Formats: sequence, C-alpha cells, structure tokens
Amino acid sequence: MGIERKKTAPIGVFDSGVGGLTVAREIMRNLPKEDIVYFGDTARVPYGSKSKDNIIRYSKQIINFLKTKGVKAIVIACNTASALALDAVKNEFDIPIIGVVEPGARAALAMTKTNKIGIIGTEATVRSSMYEKIIQGIQPNVEVIAKACPLFVPLVEEGFKKHPVTDEIIDYYLSSLIQTDIDALILGCTHYPLLRTKIRAYVGEQINLINPAYETAMDLKKILQEYDMENPDVEGDHGSYSFYVSDAADKFKEFANSILPYDIETTKQINIEEY
Amino acid sequence: MGIERKKTAPIGVFDSGVGGLTVAREIMRNLPKEDIVYFGDTARVPYGSKSKDNIIRYSKQIINFLKTKGVKAIVIACNTASALALDAVKNEFDIPIIGVVEPGARAALAMTKTNKIGIIGTEATVRSSMYEKIIQGIQPNVEVIAKACPLFVPLVEEGFKKHPVTDEIIDYYLSSLIQTDIDALILGCTHYPLLRTKIRAYVGEQINLINPAYETAMDLKKILQEYDMENPDVEGDHGSYSFYVSDAADKFKEFANSILPYDIETTKQINIEEY
Repeated sequence: MGIERKKTAPIGVFDSGVGGLTVAREIMRNLPKEDIVYFGDTARVPYGSKSKDNIIRYSKQIINFLKTKGVKAIVIACNTASALALDAVKNEFDIPIIGVVEPGARAALAMTKTNKIGIIGTEATVRSSMYEKIIQGIQPNVEVIAKACPLFVPLVEEGFKKHPVTDEIIDYYLSSLIQTDIDALILGCTHYPLLRTKIRAYVGEQINLINPAYETAMDLKKILQEYDMENPDVEGDHGSYSFYVSDAADKFKEFANSILPYDIETTKQINIEEY
Repeated sequence: MGIERKKTAPIGVFDSGVGGLTVAREIMRNLPKEDIVYFGDTARVPYGSKSKDNIIRYSKQIINFLKTKGVKAIVIACNTASALALDAVKNEFDIPIIGVVEPGARAALAMTKTNKIGIIGTEATVRSSMYEKIIQGIQPNVEVIAKACPLFVPLVEEGFKKHPVTDEIIDYYLSSLIQTDIDALILGCTHYPLLRTKIRAYVGEQINLINPAYETAMDLKKILQEYDMENPDVEGDHGSYSFYVSDAADKFKEFANSILPYDIETTKQINIEEY
C-alpha cells in the first residue's frame, strides 16, 4: 500500500527560475507517465552569481516545499544548485535527489575521443569545478576546459536567442575554447540548450554538444526502475504537471508556454522563505 | 542633545546590488561631511524583473536593518525600489526617506524645451509608469516615452561597458526613442550612468542625459538643511563609509572599488531575511 502510494507520487523538479523547464521537458518526453511538481525560484533568480551558502539554504527550503507535495524523488534541474548544493542536501532528506551535473559529466565522458571536454556554465558553476571533479574522479586523464558565460542567461531571458549580437557574444566567450581540441562541450546551464542552434553553428560539427537535461531524464528513469517506483499508469496521454514560483507567476507562465510541449494552465506563487 | 546625535548620524543608502553606488558616489562628492551606511541586496538582485509585493517586502526589511545602524535619513538608491516601494514605506517609518525617481523627474522637467522626455530603465520601473506619473503630475502637457532596457544591467555587471556589442544593444533599445523629438533622457536605472559615454555618443548632443543620482544627492542636501540635520564636522577630509551586502561580499567590494572615489576596506555580509 505504501509502495503503491509512492509509485503514483509526483517527481519534484526545481530550478532558480525558468531554465529548469528544459529538464522538465525531457522528463515529460521520456517519462510521460510521471506527474511533475515544478518549482522555479523566480524571486531569487539568478543563482549563478551567488554564494554557496545561500544556494544551499535556498535548495533546502525548496526541497522542504516539494516534500509538502508528497514527491517520490527530486531533480535539481539547475546546474549551479546541482554543483553547489547536491552534496549538502543528498543525505539530509529521505528521498532520492539527483542533479544535472553527474549525468552531463558521464555523457561527455562516453563521447570524448580526444579526452578533452569543454564545459560552459554560470560563474558559480565554473568556480565550483564540480564538472571537473566528477569527470576526473571517473577518468583522471581527461582534461576539462571550463568557461563561464554569464551573459547567455539574460540574452535568452530577454528574447535575444536569434539576434545577431548573440553571435558576437558567443564568439567572445567561446573563441578560446574552439582553439583547443575538445570534442565534447557540456551545455552546463539549463538555459544554454535554448541557444543550441547558434552554438552549434559556431563550434562546428567536430564538437559534440551535450545537454545534461536529456541525460538527467534518463538517469531519473533508471533510478525509478531500480527502486520499482515508476508510475504504472496514467489518465490520458501524459501525467499531470503543476507549477509553483516564488515571484511573478505570469511572466513565468509566458516563458514556460514558449518552451514546453504542453500549455501551462495555472502557476501558483508561494513565499519560499516560509519553508 | 537628541538633535546633536541626529546630526552626526549616518545616511542610509540602499540598492538591489552595486548600482546604487553611483548614488553613494554623488553623496560622497557633494556632501563630503556625511557618513554613509550602504546596503546592497546582492542575494536578491536584480529587482528589475520582480513583483511589486516582493520589492516592498525587501525594502521594508532593508529599512529595518538600516535603522539598527541609527541612520538619520534613507536614500532608496534604486529606481525600481523607488518606483515601486517608496509610497508604501514613506509613511511607515519615522525618518525621511527619499527615492531617485522624483529628483530625476524634476531635473528632466527643468531641462526640456520640446516637452518630450525619454526615460529608460528596468522592466519593473517602466511598467510602474512612476516617472510618467510624477512628471505629468507636475506638468500634464509633457509627453513621456519610456523604454525598458533589461540587458544594460548584465552588460555593465559582466564588464561589457566598452565592448562593441554594447553599442549594438544600445541601438536595439534606443533607435525608436531617438526618432522622436525628446530633448531629455532620464537614465532611470543606477547602472545606466556607467554606460553614459556610449549612450551619449549614440543619442547625440541634442538630447540631455539626466542622471538621477546627482539630483538625488542635491535633494538630500536640501532636506538635511531644512531639518537642520547636516553633520557639522568631520575627521579627515570625508565622512566614514560602511558597506553591507546580503551575499558575496568579495565580488561587491571589487566592483565598488572600480567606481567609488575611495577604496572600500571591508564589506560585511548579513542575512537580510532576519529583518
């Protein structure tokens, strides 16, 4: 009975804002029977320029909130929070919690032949060296070249995805990276897959782009199978999805509807500082 | 005795982050005898994309914090917080509180001959229509043309002040504005004076650029004189300045030292959610 309840419980997914919707999207596509409760911390976005202590505090509050929704597992769909807070929260809560960094790192390792991997992300993610640590923990001889691209998030959020200035800023950040012989580049921030077309055009076909969002959905699937916690059935053709934010629900909804396969009907605003 | 204490008390200045330092700078230059306690809300920056309710809540917490430092007056050195929260906080506290919007609006009115004023700022500032309300409250026949420029803040913060992409983004945001016959343009966000050289080059000499920071310092001076609260004396050649932030004190200090006339020695981090 207890197990039955768990199987039908939703997956909790959280991010500093809208970026994690690219992860939710992969879960929707690849685990269509699962329900999702998504939380976007729009009151405190962005995390990328903030300190480790605060990001751990924020992550704990959000996990406490998601637990009130009875989630059976949690996906930290934010590279910065995965890099800075996953270790701190993993053992503190009694449900599986996975981040996006390890799945991304493993996918890059599976792909590289030159043993040189590039990683782009926020300032905080790059400063944490978490991708390097995980990659070199598995294969110490792999070289990792990391580059922070702090303007990519505002460019995506302000609608410059297709504007020519974005090409120039891509050139500004990535020109030194493409002069190395990396053959895999991890898009280490949930917003970056939204710039994939331009980044692909810039780096050329020799460099594989790795989107940790997809890899994370695959990891989640494996974990649910392992624990025998997959949702056995679903009404209609997909699970039910609910969305919570800490600020400005309307703006979130608009952005979400531009990137998700299903339209969001309602987004609820909560005071995350109470958790 | 009570009055003596008040005269030597510091001025509280706050902003969502580093931007308000351009206002602190003008107070340092024009009211050199005054002590300043500055608070930058670096844990919750930026305010420009957040809701009115949250910005009022943040502003009240910060004013509570500044009051623990015994300030005699408070300057809201953030256009977004001035536009959205000043009315809500002004009557709730027992010390003078001034914002940057009204001084900027009055300076623009004093300057315009075409009776057309442009204003650029964050999304939240522009959405609030606060500059329009104040300008048209004084002179109803003046037309106000507002434009949100959300990428300007990250461009300044990520060190693109002098980069050519900034010229293109200025063109993107301002091309429609300069086709009108505005003759005054309010730099309605504390970061924008740091782009002054490029904005000046783009808009030409016919349009006066108004920096509310300077006007606000002049207003503060008037208010202190009016209440007989000016600091009568100072040790050394200027007042003493202390800096508090809600996150990442080191990064703040680095940015501050690049724009202030005096080097910051220490920046203390506090938990603003406790106030």
